[in-house]
Amino acid sequence: MPTLYHHPMSAASRFVRLVLSEYGFQVDLVEEQAWEMRREFLALNPAGVLPVYVDDSMRALCGASVIAEFVDETHGVLKRERRLFAEDPFQRAEIRRLTEWFLQKMEHDVTRPLVRERVYKLHMPPSLGGGAPDSKVLRTARANIREHLKYLSWLAGSRPWLAGDRLTYADLAAGASISVLDYMGEIDWNDAPVAKEWYQRLKSRPSFRPMLSERIRGLTPVSHYADLDF
Amino acid sequence: MPTLYHHPMSAASRFVRLVLSEYGFQVDLVEEQAWEMRREFLALNPAGVLPVYVDDSMRALCGASVIAEFVDETHGVLKRERRLFAEDPFQRAEIRRLTEWFLQKMEHDVTRPLVRERVYKLHMPPSLGGGAPDSKVLRTARANIREHLKYLSWLAGSRPWLAGDRLTYADLAAGASISVLDYMGEIDWNDAPVAKEWYQRLKSRPSFRPMLSERIRGLTPVSHYADLDF
Repeated sequence: MPTLYHHPMSAASRFVRLVLSEYGFQVDLVEEQAWEMRREFLALNPAGVLPVYVDDSMRALCGASVIAEFVDETHGVLKRERRLFAEDPFQRAEIRRLTEWFLQKMEHDVTRPLVRERVYKLHMPPSLGGGAPDSKVLRTARANIREHLKYLSWLAGSRPWLAGDRLTYADLAAGASISVLDYMGEIDWNDAPVAKEWYQRLKSRPSFRPMLSERIRGLTPVSHYADLDF
Repeated sequence: MPTLYHHPMSAASRFVRLVLSEYGFQVDLVEEQAWEMRREFLALNPAGVLPVYVDDSMRALCGASVIAEFVDETHGVLKRERRLFAEDPFQRAEIRRLTEWFLQKMEHDVTRPLVRERVYKLHMPPSLGGGAPDSKVLRTARANIREHLKYLSWLAGSRPWLAGDRLTYADLAAGASISVLDYMGEIDWNDAPVAKEWYQRLKSRPSFRPMLSERIRGLTPVSHYADLDF
């Protein structure tokens, strides 16, 4: 069976798990602490980033966008109206733009610093940077959440799904990032009723279920985390 | 005519210029100082990053990978053996992995900090962070160059072109980043004879010519910058 190296609090990993689940792929999940820079992991992906998909012939696909593009090229076209990508090149460009928005821009502005400070530093030895969260980093990242929720709300309010009429990679990328932040209680849903309605729809999909039942060592999720009707 | 918003020292912008030139696209180049966050520019690309391609119908494509994928989908397949991408999904994954390596990982580790400290800060007003370069940032980025040149040398030594037998996006992404660093005199070619041979071949292509004749205000390039036989 193929293997996915992932971390439960990595938004890029969650995105790929959602893609694979929506398409009915079975994979063995292996949790990787990427900060350890394990030699065997770096041999698979010299960039040292998650997720990495290793197929039955031991060929590695490195990083969320490489995996998602590969899955679309090899399986997406057969899915017809369940395809998570579009046919039209301009729509494809819009889906890619939004996927990058959540997995790169929001990741940089909000998700990565919060996860690093609140989760990874709990599990890292002090020699690799573990320890108490840096309150300045937390403050900056939290200030950025509001702008990102505004943009998400605008998208969710102007289209049935974020990139248009159908569920696409853009929704799964956004949902992956939002679910990580929601686990940590970083999202004030009272501020964002339109985004909340979109997230409720997304969260109700069977592909989300395994992630909603996971728990991170040392960090209890916010009480509504797994509720479909929060 | 379509427009490309770019900056001459942005590796992602150079990459897209090379792609467009290799495929014979004509575009109007508009230099954008992305740090100014101009309202009109943010209306095209809310993420505020370069490059942005605007077609004749005023549709915007935002970011290097979105543009490159779009160009391949709409034009690449017609180029046959001159296509800058592969047909096989695994080879496509490898080209994407390497393109990301240079435009994201090397950008993060080396290119962005050096360009920011040495070029952008020359042109930024102090209110936006302009001023003298931070010597600690320079030192860290320079220490990272060596590792990246090693990896580039390994790739260039094991394959005719970086991703295999043909020139692909991977070479253009690497060449875009390397040419920016070379302009600033940051590369010691004595350390990297194999990478140098690869870069000489790449630099000799007509698509490189316009970039080799550009000069940045306030920063003279290293003396061999435009030499094809350096």
